Amino acid sequence: MDQLTAQNANTFFYQAFQQLSINQMDIIWSHGDNSICIHPGWELVIGWMAIKESWIQIFNKIEMIDMKTNTLSLRKCGNLAIFICLENIRISENGRINRSCVLSTNVFEQSKGRWLLSHHQASSISNNLLDIYDS
Amino acid sequence: MDQLTAQNANTFFYQAFQQLSINQMDIIWSHGDNSICIHPGWELVIGWMAIKESWIQIFNKIEMIDMKTNTLSLRKCGNLAIFICLENIRISENGRINRSCVLSTNVFEQSKGRWLLSHHQASSISNNLLDIYDS
Repeated sequence: MDQLTAQNANTFFYQAFQQLSINQMDIIWSHGDNSICIHPGWELVIGWMAIKESWIQIFNKIEMIDMKTNTLSLRKCGNLAIFICLENIRISENGRINRSCVLSTNVFEQSKGRWLLSHHQASSISNNLLDIYDS
Repeated sequence: MDQLTAQNANTFFYQAFQQLSINQMDIIWSHGDNSICIHPGWELVIGWMAIKESWIQIFNKIEMIDMKTNTLSLRKCGNLAIFICLENIRISENGRINRSCVLSTNVFEQSKGRWLLSHHQASSISNNLLDIYDS
């Protein structure tokens, strides 16, 4: 993990999501009390312990997930990196497949050589952007 | 404007919002084609011209607004500053007053000495955080 670039860290986060892996989420998230996570339609989740619990709840409901991501922008300065990503998600829950398009802001901070996710804000947006993935 | 700090720029943005001032929004937003704005429940808005139009639509509907903001975190590095803010908003539309709590990520970039807003993502969250403002 120490050699990960910021881009690799963002990719690692989405792999953790797609693999429904709490262990990988544990690796990529900052464990600080001030870490912030906003899932679409959820309440605000603050601090790694609460964030971890939120991912457990989400992962427990998912039977299948297929996700494509597209980085709209990356801003990086020193130990700070901000990704704005479109997520094209297909999820199977309770035997039903739902498709959604989500825009996320991911803020990574480098600490002791490791890029860690300290802020993830995800908002459901209109599906009219799904074509971006097919182009 | 040239002497504004990043903090002042964030304050300026919320003053523009509270004063329903398109002219002030025009001053504080980056006019780049890649600027991004996500209002709660809206589609993704990209580029200043579309963002300006979105604020015009929003402002035209508002009869009265009262807003308190609380900065949860500020990360700053060089020409990049990220604010995570809670917005406690009371809005009157069509004679009705609605109260909402919104979490926003605001990304400012300094260009030619001016801090300009290039990314604003706003998500409605549960009202159980409204007490933060009263404490």
